[in-house]
Amino acid sequence: MKPLTPRFPTVDRNGFVPAPESIPPPDVKYRQKVPPGLPVHKHPLNPLAFLLRGALIYPDHIAIAHPDVKHPAYYTYSVWAQRVQNLAYALIHFGIKPRDTVAVLAPNAPMIADAYQAIPAARGVICPINTRLTPLEIAYILEHSRAKLILVDYEYVHLVKDTKIPAILSNDTGRAGDPYEEFLSQGRRFSRERGWWGLEPEPDEDAGFALCYTSGTTGRPKGVLTTLRGTYLGAVANAYETKMDINSVYLWVLPMFHAGGWTYPWAATFAVSAQITLRNVSYPLIWNHLRNSSVTHYCGAPTVQIGLVNYPETEKLLKPVTAIIAGSAPTAHLIASLEKIGINPVHTYGPFTRNHLQESWLALPLEERAKHMARQGYSYTTADGVRVVYQTEDEDLQDVPQDGKTIGEIVVRGNLVMREYFTDEKATEKAFKGGYFRSGDLAVMYPDGSVGIQDRSKDIIISGGENASSLAIEQELVTHPDVLEVAVVARGHPKWGERPMAFVTLHPSKTAKWENKHKEFEIDLKAHARKRLPGFATPEWVAVVPGLPKTSTGKIQKVELRKRVAKL
Amino acid sequence: MKPLTPRFPTVDRNGFVPAPESIPPPDVKYRQKVPPGLPVHKHPLNPLAFLLRGALIYPDHIAIAHPDVKHPAYYTYSVWAQRVQNLAYALIHFGIKPRDTVAVLAPNAPMIADAYQAIPAARGVICPINTRLTPLEIAYILEHSRAKLILVDYEYVHLVKDTKIPAILSNDTGRAGDPYEEFLSQGRRFSRERGWWGLEPEPDEDAGFALCYTSGTTGRPKGVLTTLRGTYLGAVANAYETKMDINSVYLWVLPMFHAGGWTYPWAATFAVSAQITLRNVSYPLIWNHLRNSSVTHYCGAPTVQIGLVNYPETEKLLKPVTAIIAGSAPTAHLIASLEKIGINPVHTYGPFTRNHLQESWLALPLEERAKHMARQGYSYTTADGVRVVYQTEDEDLQDVPQDGKTIGEIVVRGNLVMREYFTDEKATEKAFKGGYFRSGDLAVMYPDGSVGIQDRSKDIIISGGENASSLAIEQELVTHPDVLEVAVVARGHPKWGERPMAFVTLHPSKTAKWENKHKEFEIDLKAHARKRLPGFATPEWVAVVPGLPKTSTGKIQKVELRKRVAKL
Repeated sequence: MKPLTPRFPTVDRNGFVPAPESIPPPDVKYRQKVPPGLPVHKHPLNPLAFLLRGALIYPDHIAIAHPDVKHPAYYTYSVWAQRVQNLAYALIHFGIKPRDTVAVLAPNAPMIADAYQAIPAARGVICPINTRLTPLEIAYILEHSRAKLILVDYEYVHLVKDTKIPAILSNDTGRAGDPYEEFLSQGRRFSRERGWWGLEPEPDEDAGFALCYTSGTTGRPKGVLTTLRGTYLGAVANAYETKMDINSVYLWVLPMFHAGGWTYPWAATFAVSAQITLRNVSYPLIWNHLRNSSVTHYCGAPTVQIGLVNYPETEKLLKPVTAIIAGSAPTAHLIASLEKIGINPVHTYGPFTRNHLQESWLALPLEERAKHMARQGYSYTTADGVRVVYQTEDEDLQDVPQDGKTIGEIVVRGNLVMREYFTDEKATEKAFKGGYFRSGDLAVMYPDGSVGIQDRSKDIIISGGENASSLAIEQELVTHPDVLEVAVVARGHPKWGERPMAFVTLHPSKTAKWENKHKEFEIDLKAHARKRLPGFATPEWVAVVPGLPKTSTGKIQKVELRKRVAKL
Repeated sequence: MKPLTPRFPTVDRNGFVPAPESIPPPDVKYRQKVPPGLPVHKHPLNPLAFLLRGALIYPDHIAIAHPDVKHPAYYTYSVWAQRVQNLAYALIHFGIKPRDTVAVLAPNAPMIADAYQAIPAARGVICPINTRLTPLEIAYILEHSRAKLILVDYEYVHLVKDTKIPAILSNDTGRAGDPYEEFLSQGRRFSRERGWWGLEPEPDEDAGFALCYTSGTTGRPKGVLTTLRGTYLGAVANAYETKMDINSVYLWVLPMFHAGGWTYPWAATFAVSAQITLRNVSYPLIWNHLRNSSVTHYCGAPTVQIGLVNYPETEKLLKPVTAIIAGSAPTAHLIASLEKIGINPVHTYGPFTRNHLQESWLALPLEERAKHMARQGYSYTTADGVRVVYQTEDEDLQDVPQDGKTIGEIVVRGNLVMREYFTDEKATEKAFKGGYFRSGDLAVMYPDGSVGIQDRSKDIIISGGENASSLAIEQELVTHPDVLEVAVVARGHPKWGERPMAFVTLHPSKTAKWENKHKEFEIDLKAHARKRLPGFATPEWVAVVPGLPKTSTGKIQKVELRKRVAKL
């Protein structure tokens, strides 16, 4: 039989002993009261149950490992559950009431992992804030979310120095003297050992749970409010789809603040997996863990995956690792590159769809198969069906034909959809027009009923009356062996109306090859494109750039590129 | 990469072509209407969604294989979904209205597999009836369940020949001319190709779904009514816990009529697994499939597992198979025997608890580890917690100490519990006294918070003031190398009040050894017992019998044994 506890051979846990307040009492009970008025055959779906169950069944299994810092920390499930309980009591002691928002401004570290469990345990709503935002943007979110308290990591204190909202500071030491640790200890004292039984359970599974703000490429960020029920079902589906279990080690490459950590804070507790927290996206550290820490799963947007694949000391992994890719559509080229080094991509689109391997693909060459794998696929196990509809203004949504060509908008509904844009009825109404969440993403539906994103509506290039998908063009351009990343936008053209313009970064090892020869590279890339794309989709212009502008979550900012184009 | 479609090398599918009415139209859509009045972020949990999703994503994957009959049949997911749709329309055409009960009296075969999906698709309630009951018992269930229609297999027609309820007969041929096939064709015609869209979805996830009658060892059988929500969450948990997926082949050893097939009719569709239906528990057929049909999973009560392990042509399986054991508690000896031949037992208790392997057990000898694995363990992933409480008469349930000794009653609540005993408020109220479902099973709670069943209350033997668990005694007696099965009951004793009496069947290969030497065997077994049990638990009497009386679901009927003992 396989060993049940993953090992962390590169880390020395001997030096670390959790504070006495983090140790559960000998008679700890992982049970909460039954909310009154429920029939015997019902309990509200609440992801907190996963942590309690994990701590009950596998108390000594590693839950959180935080190795790559000055003060490493390692928490077993039972110790972690106690710390979560302490934080929940501390929040209540502070004055947090049901439905109150508590903000978190922190990198991947124990504090934010605690917060994802403890704020809901105190019946609050967690609002994790992107650490790459400006102080002004953060101030807006704090105000809009009505945050009553901020949990803030020492590295980001400067971003909230002007706020009047009370803050708890973490120095990320896990040691006595750390204000965050002191806050936890206060919680433990305040609990008077009432334990989980003393924390009132949330009776309504439809209650708000996490409040994550959009990055707001256009206009003000909006607060996406998800529910307990939606998170529960999303986390279960993710654990199932990616085969996470007690033997899994989940590496936090994705910032945990990003869109509720794609539900993986709870998918990991559902599966009773170990989580390794990394403060920053550091390729040497990531590769170290992939090689030496029994990592089995990680999430990352395509841009992070590209960095990982192109890291100079890449090697083929002996034990396959599952990489969950979402955030934006990966190119077929990226998928193929990951597979070559032993990383199995699971390509998902939000919590709504995933790509499902088909037997008929197995005989295909890797590049061909990767094209199929780059499609967004089918609806998630616990999601309702996904549709691709015409962009009608009225409420009657019309499905596009399943021809793999006709472009429509992806719309979704059901348990994995957000409940609302927080306190923004108008925006919610608009997003839900027609009884579906309007994603704004443009896609086709293939004859097999699977979905393939083409572009967001503004990313379609109308060239001589033809609709060219900038994503489809990018998919082909990136297969050029010297290209690292590429972004295509529309640029005005006197004859064709619009024509594609490609912004390209070169592979580090190929930069010297094309130095002062950008014109020659342009000719080479266009020749490459003409073999693979129709004329109207071949880029008219190619600009080699040192880097592409990206949002704080790693998405390429086409808005910026369009601004540049406008000035040409 | 692994092949995605399991192979059935022992069967020749060439001969079988589904009827034209079973072939979906080219533009088939696997989508139902959205029930009115729902917010965008909610859809009712309904296990029917699993089949529709399976048919959409893997239309050509084998869903149902029915090989070991005169007329074998093989249905892919798309064909099966069409047949389910046809049956749903046929039921509506017949006059089935929402909440109407439709009974099924059939062995494992395509019809009952269809019924588990189609009756809920028509918004009816499925009532699968145990084929081993008497005509009188069946008549009672048909009347009590208010069945409007019976789907009946040719082998069991004689059991319902006096009923006035209309019946649809299946000759289990899957061919034209079979009344069941004609019923499906009627459904297809009646549908006028309205497809899934034309079948009204069930708006209430709390609606009754399956109505399964208890075997009624004491008194009349009771109708256990489960809900859509409960079944959905139970099926997802089972698929997750047993790691069923697209590569899995589930062998129907357990009768599908038994307690909703332990939710595996839907766990299999959730996982898009293949199902092989076996009309009867035939060890040669089971072993043939274990060896040759890529079987990965099956369910069975301990008695079936014992038969399987003791089949003469047993061999160690090359690819491990997962056996889900429930129905009654397996002995440690059985668990160890299964592991020796490459069968990994997953021991569950109803849909409430399962045994979870612990790392600390791995170093133990197999027999020792199996003892741990024979415990009922911890609450299921999607269940609420399980408790062991004192048998108080008032509503205030008191947990027993976690000492592994104090016996109490297992009580459970939450989403995996039945909604009610159908039309029996009094029995429901009694079963739910104290806000929990009172299982009637006696257990201890160990210091690690796991549960171990001792006995049903009447199986405790009070010997000289000591409580002896008949199950614990059986666990030890069955380790005697010549014993096949054993059942222990209390027998009156002038001095001690009660003493254990053991009824034993011998292993087939050992029957000759002890022929006309039952007294010697008794001495041998008692000596074996004394080494392992306290004096008060050592059996005072041993009876070697040719077979043990069993219920129609394979449970040993201690009631019968007690009757025998009363006459001694």
